[in-house]
Amino acid sequence: MTDWTIATAAEIAETVRSGEVSASTVVEACLARIDAHDSAIGAFTHVAHERARARAAGIDAMIKRGEDPGPLAGVPFAVKNLFDIKGIATLAGSKINRDLAPASRDAVLIERLEANGAILLGALNMGEYAYDFTGENYHDGPSRNPHAPEHMTGGSSGGSGAAAAAGFVPLTLGSDTNGSIRVPSSLCGLFGLKPTYGRLSRSGSFPFVASLDHLGPLARSAVDLALSYNAMTGPDPVDPVCTDRIDPPVTLTASTAIDGLRIAKAGGFFEEGGHQEAFDAVAKICTALGVSQTLPIENAALARASAYLITMAEGASLHLDRLRTRHADYDPDVRDRLLAGAMIPGAWVTKAQKFRSLFRAQMQALFEEVDVLIAPATPCVAPRIGQKTFMLGGKELPVRPNLGIFTQPISFIGLPVVSVPVWLEGSPLPIGVQIIAAPWREDIALRVAAWLEENGHVSAPVATLKEKAV
Amino acid sequence: MTDWTIATAAEIAETVRSGEVSASTVVEACLARIDAHDSAIGAFTHVAHERARARAAGIDAMIKRGEDPGPLAGVPFAVKNLFDIKGIATLAGSKINRDLAPASRDAVLIERLEANGAILLGALNMGEYAYDFTGENYHDGPSRNPHAPEHMTGGSSGGSGAAAAAGFVPLTLGSDTNGSIRVPSSLCGLFGLKPTYGRLSRSGSFPFVASLDHLGPLARSAVDLALSYNAMTGPDPVDPVCTDRIDPPVTLTASTAIDGLRIAKAGGFFEEGGHQEAFDAVAKICTALGVSQTLPIENAALARASAYLITMAEGASLHLDRLRTRHADYDPDVRDRLLAGAMIPGAWVTKAQKFRSLFRAQMQALFEEVDVLIAPATPCVAPRIGQKTFMLGGKELPVRPNLGIFTQPISFIGLPVVSVPVWLEGSPLPIGVQIIAAPWREDIALRVAAWLEENGHVSAPVATLKEKAV
Repeated sequence: MTDWTIATAAEIAETVRSGEVSASTVVEACLARIDAHDSAIGAFTHVAHERARARAAGIDAMIKRGEDPGPLAGVPFAVKNLFDIKGIATLAGSKINRDLAPASRDAVLIERLEANGAILLGALNMGEYAYDFTGENYHDGPSRNPHAPEHMTGGSSGGSGAAAAAGFVPLTLGSDTNGSIRVPSSLCGLFGLKPTYGRLSRSGSFPFVASLDHLGPLARSAVDLALSYNAMTGPDPVDPVCTDRIDPPVTLTASTAIDGLRIAKAGGFFEEGGHQEAFDAVAKICTALGVSQTLPIENAALARASAYLITMAEGASLHLDRLRTRHADYDPDVRDRLLAGAMIPGAWVTKAQKFRSLFRAQMQALFEEVDVLIAPATPCVAPRIGQKTFMLGGKELPVRPNLGIFTQPISFIGLPVVSVPVWLEGSPLPIGVQIIAAPWREDIALRVAAWLEENGHVSAPVATLKEKAV
Repeated sequence: MTDWTIATAAEIAETVRSGEVSASTVVEACLARIDAHDSAIGAFTHVAHERARARAAGIDAMIKRGEDPGPLAGVPFAVKNLFDIKGIATLAGSKINRDLAPASRDAVLIERLEANGAILLGALNMGEYAYDFTGENYHDGPSRNPHAPEHMTGGSSGGSGAAAAAGFVPLTLGSDTNGSIRVPSSLCGLFGLKPTYGRLSRSGSFPFVASLDHLGPLARSAVDLALSYNAMTGPDPVDPVCTDRIDPPVTLTASTAIDGLRIAKAGGFFEEGGHQEAFDAVAKICTALGVSQTLPIENAALARASAYLITMAEGASLHLDRLRTRHADYDPDVRDRLLAGAMIPGAWVTKAQKFRSLFRAQMQALFEEVDVLIAPATPCVAPRIGQKTFMLGGKELPVRPNLGIFTQPISFIGLPVVSVPVWLEGSPLPIGVQIIAAPWREDIALRVAAWLEENGHVSAPVATLKEKAV
């Protein structure tokens, strides 16, 4: 008997479509694993047992009728709890949002995955209002790293990282403003895709920083990222930021070719200030890809600072009214950051926005010379839960805002990135490497990730869960 | 003998092209009037005698060779001193900029006008760094209203208003961030065009608020606005904001038709808080156009407040470094506004930007129902120079920031506007009315203005200059 909790989305869909296994069997296996283990992991804030079972029965009925539920047939997935799920309040990791009315419909990306046969299993833990890189939630408790439960998942899509790495579901959705998909992908040993800014509809999700927010998938295989990405792309007239571009679906053939791609290591800022494992992981990937060129990325530190200025001001803007009326109900760490953000002068933010245009142009010029840049995803493997500071570049710095040092400069200008999971010899914990492409070239980043996976350089095994719930 | 200083640009170009008069004759007439009278008016900060004479000789040589210098052949013009003029420093009304290197080339709009046969006569007085509605310059003295020299021209393109109304040149260029073309057009009795945001290249001009700055012409005839507008439109790869749209040139035939245009008066905010003359002028235009419908413009006050928030923060951002190093060299009123702007929270500006999108959508919906909106350009005729406050809506308010109450909500979302000059019976001073169209429909606003001019409802006579320089 196959253990469906370790299968990839592609394997599940293929087997369900062929009628070899029922969607209900797959869903029950996942629900059983969640029910047995999630109390020790803290990935879910809501498990949608009934909805999932009804939906699985529907998929099975389709199969029986000879209909094709689609390329994600029977694939269980779960979403960061800032996605609207019909019938429950969209928490966005907060206490305050518990008072919101239940969502009247699912987020567009949930609808699109389900339209392709996938099955929603629930809502996932996250850092409050996504202002977080740790995965520790003040109200719901931390999500725990399935590979080492005393360690962080990374955030803010911490539950999305935990659920996929724990084998609860093969596919999760997260959001990434400054790194919130890539950081948990790195710390939990997953493949994570942060698409180009504007690629995927954000309709029906709770925002954080409108000009930086991206939604995207996390999975245990690059092929699963591509499968779900293909299902989610497409214009959305309701979301003014969502692009009207229609690019061909990404197909990752059995032997994915990377011949002819010009790949370089990101130098300068991206070679400094991290722990050795971050640079060892990059070196491993560069060796695998035969990369010899290093291109220094000028202004990356300024890009990160600018991303933070914009985050602080735009984030605070979204929360001004709640800060006045519900201040006691915030995670104190989030509240302090929002209050500080509320006082950032607009004149600084304007400078940051102006620099953003310049940095975008600078990077566009660089992508005339290369197709792919390789950079660390996080400065280190997962810190321990509760750890407040770490040493970066010889300085003791707070963990929470600094886990994203290498992700922020990239999302700042909306470049598509796949974070791939590297396991270094002798380390029990994984660490991610960013495969960065030019705007709208998710296909290239996914192709490189799939090649690395196919050739055994990266992998995302399901964690062995030692602590069984009693 | 024709007095070339009262001729329109169209009349001059026609006569010069036909060989009936030389460009040199026209230029000398204008220079003579400037030299005789500008000490009493204060329109120019730099008169380019040599350049203009050389250029006129060149035009005359072309005519002799049987070549056509273009539709602006021999038309003298002058520009607000924030436009780059090769060989002189671009003051932007400041003392500080006197230390800048001389510009190495002309602004793109100057190049385009000259490529069509026009002749630059010099640089014009303006409020410091364009942060002004009065036309009073702290360093160069006020520009004076040619129709009543103890009264303001309005600003910040005060010299542009004064020069055209005084008969120094038939055509001037100004900039309009919150009303700086329309306010002096109104107070000096001129036609002024603030094009759609992004329509005309801003290359080679000193900025104020990048997301609100527009450049455009002032003239004594709507036909001249169209002539110069046609010459200045077109993509500019150097200016990222300049549109790639290429619309047909605006042609204003001998009897311009306005049949079929749906025209409404702007109601609500635009019917309140001004002096009686502002509303009388609107009524006169509405009667002339047979307008019976009034459409309330919701949220206009919020639009104005948002425009100011963005102006304060973006304006301050541009000046932060100079405020640190050259604070004593600013106009104290401008410095205080910039310092206050430097402390505006980014979170407020973000809210203003968000509202901007909503207001744009609201007005777009309204332009499904009408083609043209009619509104006052200023709340009153020209105040006296030095006047610090006036009564608006029963409250004593400062003049400087409040002359633009009716222009700010319109430029906030970049709508094209022609301000037309109305002379009410019994008033020695003119006042403007805004003809507002949907984005990219300058043609419609110009057509209505030309119809009003042709039918004698609006006019822009050259002022009789009483105080002759001795």
